Parts: sequence; structure tokens; C-alpha cells
Amino acid sequence: MSAAARNSSDLPGAVRLREVGPRDGFQNEPEVIPTGEKVALIDMLARTGLRRLEVTSFVRADVIPQLADAAEVIDAIDVPEDVAIGVLIPNERGLQAALAHRERFQEINVFLSASESHNRANVNRSVEESLSGLERVLARAGGEGLRCEGVISVAFGCPYEGYVAPERVFAIASRLAAAGAVEVAFGDTTGMANPRQVGEFFLAAREALGEEVELTAHFHNTRGQGLANVLAALETGVDSFESSFGELGGCPVPAGATGNIATEDLVSMLHEMGIETGVDLAALLECARGVRGVLGRPLGSHTLVAGPVDWHRA
Amino acid sequence: MSAAARNSSDLPGAVRLREVGPRDGFQNEPEVIPTGEKVALIDMLARTGLRRLEVTSFVRADVIPQLADAAEVIDAIDVPEDVAIGVLIPNERGLQAALAHRERFQEINVFLSASESHNRANVNRSVEESLSGLERVLARAGGEGLRCEGVISVAFGCPYEGYVAPERVFAIASRLAAAGAVEVAFGDTTGMANPRQVGEFFLAAREALGEEVELTAHFHNTRGQGLANVLAALETGVDSFESSFGELGGCPVPAGATGNIATEDLVSMLHEMGIETGVDLAALLECARGVRGVLGRPLGSHTLVAGPVDWHRA
Repeated sequence: MSAAARNSSDLPGAVRLREVGPRDGFQNEPEVIPTGEKVALIDMLARTGLRRLEVTSFVRADVIPQLADAAEVIDAIDVPEDVAIGVLIPNERGLQAALAHRERFQEINVFLSASESHNRANVNRSVEESLSGLERVLARAGGEGLRCEGVISVAFGCPYEGYVAPERVFAIASRLAAAGAVEVAFGDTTGMANPRQVGEFFLAAREALGEEVELTAHFHNTRGQGLANVLAALETGVDSFESSFGELGGCPVPAGATGNIATEDLVSMLHEMGIETGVDLAALLECARGVRGVLGRPLGSHTLVAGPVDWHRA
Repeated sequence: MSAAARNSSDLPGAVRLREVGPRDGFQNEPEVIPTGEKVALIDMLARTGLRRLEVTSFVRADVIPQLADAAEVIDAIDVPEDVAIGVLIPNERGLQAALAHRERFQEINVFLSASESHNRANVNRSVEESLSGLERVLARAGGEGLRCEGVISVAFGCPYEGYVAPERVFAIASRLAAAGAVEVAFGDTTGMANPRQVGEFFLAAREALGEEVELTAHFHNTRGQGLANVLAALETGVDSFESSFGELGGCPVPAGATGNIATEDLVSMLHEMGIETGVDLAALLECARGVRGVLGRPLGSHTLVAGPVDWHRA
């Protein structure tokens, strides 16, 4: 790798953030959040400067009752024109359901796992079966003019299989890109990644995937290393990240463990480092306070408790 | 700076850790922990591979009742010979009290703040008054054959004054080194540091202080950036860190905020990166479980909840 690429002066000057809390976070709450509360929180998030929001998923209501109101949510939200609304699409049936609301969203994302056993546990399919289905989803979504992203889970390690070869992950990413995904996110789904691994992974990913696809990092804070992994990714030039306001979601395993990195912790670190996000941290913290009020429990977010750094006290 | 210094292949192969939980953590609990519990936890910590433990402080019992049993603790602990016991010394009177137990410890550390207002709030003295007193403490402790460390609080920013000029911090470090401190720790006391700042700070510190003193990093996780700051410090060659088991202590402000980084989160990250610490993570997690049991409340440590990364599952 280029040593200069790790020089802090070469860190990206700005990064793109995609907020996944309204889908990933709300889905993982034991209680179903009322539709009106979801809509109000999404509308708030859309006015923080966040430009991309994953708001729901068209899934079977009997499997994920937390998102049974996908149609109502997507029809009710009221967001500024420069905010891209994204929907998680599990399969062709989900895409069909979503397309009934085609004018209400601009992006989709699809997902599968890098390991056979995690994919089997998650969607009861082999990786190849998932890929074949998602290739059909991506083709059709692309034909509808939707921007498509692929998300690869357990890309840095699998809780069932342990080590996952990066080459395997990159091969899946190539398939998704060839099928129409313009962006691939690599998920550290159970928080197994460390900063050295992350640095090596993204340098190799750029080597393997060239410029054929945008590379996005999706870290979890399961073992407290979420932002250290962000730093390692930034140092390789990664400038696109996914996170969740309030540190919601991310399939916390075991119970009580933290999942996604908190968007407000990420934004706080980036701004303190002089890296632009376009986000108003105070407005974002209002959203986190809002969802904490709805859920009625403490959240894992650090900046939500501590507040932003204040350099200007007298 | 040398770009190569940030190349991950140049990260230190091993780091030294100093555990501060038995002093910093126990001091910051609202309830006084029974002496027997303290001793049992220190004896456990001393058998994890941790080589340096800050176990108590000789302070006025009416000011800090949590540490009123300093003499009993230091006389009762039973640690292996290769573990260095350290005592925090607030002033000459504290050193006098500690020296009545001279054969029971090998190290002292002294502290002051980099900013006038924080030092005034903390010990009701000017920085110069603190330095003058600590110079006498260091001279006498050195004469007793004790290894001496200086700790500089709010080295990366002050909650009252905001920005703290690194040159001011380095000037204080030089005074401490000249007075006999062989090591200086730089504390991010209220979690204001960010990784870019940390990298620049330690490169400048090495430049300013040369090889006259060992440089140690002491980060807090107030805004979730603790381990990211560790990574940034590692990348400049820092190989000495302070932390607290269970994520205890660190004067959490505001209430509910996290303080010190958790030793087990730090060890987990370092081991995953292939950096040696000499610590048995499983044994350390037993200590964290132990103190959680004594305190009877959830702790901020992530690895304590999630467990270590397991790469070997079938």
C-alpha cells in the first residue's frame, strides 16, 4: 500500500453517510414503534443534513411485524427534495410490493452474507441462491431507474465460520456490481473486524474491484472498535459510511451488546477531525433524543449522553 | 511527520499497559467498595498478565472516603513479583503517608492539569503551585528509589477553557521530566480528543520532548472515540497506554457518560491487530465480571458484554 495514503493530511475532506436507523433500528426493537412516531422521526432525520435514509423494508409482516407498516411509512413521510429515500429489498416479492410506491423512493439496497452458514441462518438460502435472486432484483430495479446498492454481511468475519476470505467477499461484490449495484457496502455484522484488518481489506478491495463500484463501510461497535475501524477505513481513502442514529439496531448479539455505530458519534468524530458530512450535529442529536423518548430506554450512543465537544467555553 | 510512521506494518509489535481501575475506578464509585473486595480484585488483576497496577491513593479520607483504606489495601494485596504496584500521590503529605508502606509499592504517579481553570477546580492551586509541589514530591520519591510518572490532565482540551496549546502541555511535561518523572501520561480527561489531533499531538510531543521521557496515552471514551484515538497514537509509535478494567472511573461528566477506555476493549483490539500486551483476555474479563458483580450494575465495557472475538467456531 502507499504509505502516503495513511498520512492524515490525505484523509478524505468529506464523506457520504447513509442513515439506516429507521429500517435497521426500528426492525430490531422488540416492540413495534407506532407508524406516526416512525414518520415523525424520519421527517426529522431528513432535516439534519443527512442525504440518504434507509426508511423501511418490504418484508413479510408475519416474519418482521416491526416493519409491517412499510407502505404506510413510505407514503406518509415528507422529506426535502435533496434527500434520497432508500428501501431494503429482501427478494423479488419485496421489490414488487415496493414498486407500488415507486414514486416515493429513489434507492434500493439488497443484502446477503459472505458466508454460507450466516446466509442460511439469515435467509435460508445458499449464497448462490441469494445471488441469483438478487441479480433479478437488481436488473428489474435498475430498469425502474432506481439506484442500487448491495450489502454484504459478515464481510470481516462470521460468527459461525470465523475467518471469511476477502477474495470470497470481493467475488460476491463483483457479481452484485455486474448485476447493477453501483455501490457495495461491507458489513462487520457481529463486530469482529479490527483496524489492521480493515485497512488491509479496503486496500485489497480497491485493488480487486477497481473503480467498478463505490465502496462503503458498515461497522458495528460490538467490541467498542467501531470508530477505530472507521479511522482505518478513512486512511485507505474510504469516504462512504453507514450508521444508525441513537446506535439503534444492528442485530445486537448477544443480548445487550451494541450493534451499529451511532451516527452522532461518527459525525462528532468526523467533524472534530475536520472532515465534512453536511450534517447538523445538534439537529441529529435532537433525533436521537427523540427516538430515546419513544423507546423509553437508554441508548448506546456516547455523544447523545455526553453532548458534542465544546471548544468555545470561556 | 514520516508517512511511513503511519504504515500499519510499522505499528508497535507490543505495548505496555498500566491498569488504573483499582484507584481511578474505585475512587469514582458513589458507594465505598469494601476493602476485602478491593484486595480480591487487585489480586485477580495481578494474575492476568497486567504488569502495572495503580492500586490506591493516599488522600485525605474526608475528601475521598472511597480511598480511605489506602493503607489497608496496600498492606493486604498479594501480587506476583513481576507486577509493579503504583500509588497515586496528590502532594507531599500523601507521599509521607505512602512511605510508611515503602516496601509495598514500586511506582508513584503525580498529576496536574494542563489548564489553569481545570487545575484550580481539581486541586485549588495554580499550575505553577502544583508543579512546585510535585517537583518536591518527585525529588523525594526518586530518592526513595521509586519509579515516577507524571500525568497531565486535560492535555487534549479543557472543559472550561476549550483549546489547550500542545506547547503548554509539553512545557509541563519537561518540568516533570526534569524533576525525575521517567514517564509522562497525557490524559484526555473529558474525551475531547479526536484521532487527527492525537496523531499530530504525539508527533509533536516526540519532537519537543525527544527521548527524555516515556510518552503514555490515557484516553477516555466519552464520545466513543477512545479506541480510535488509541489507533492514532499507535500509528505515531506510542506504545504505552493507560486504561481501566470494566470501563470504571474517569470522572464521568455529565452523569452517565463513560470515562476511561475499558482495558478489555483495548486488549481485545490490540490482540486482534496482532499487537502483544502480555495479558490473558479471558482472565481479564473474569476481573471485569467480578467488579460488575461487586457493583451490581451494568458497566460500559463492550467486550465484557459481547465476549472476545471467536475466530475458531466451526
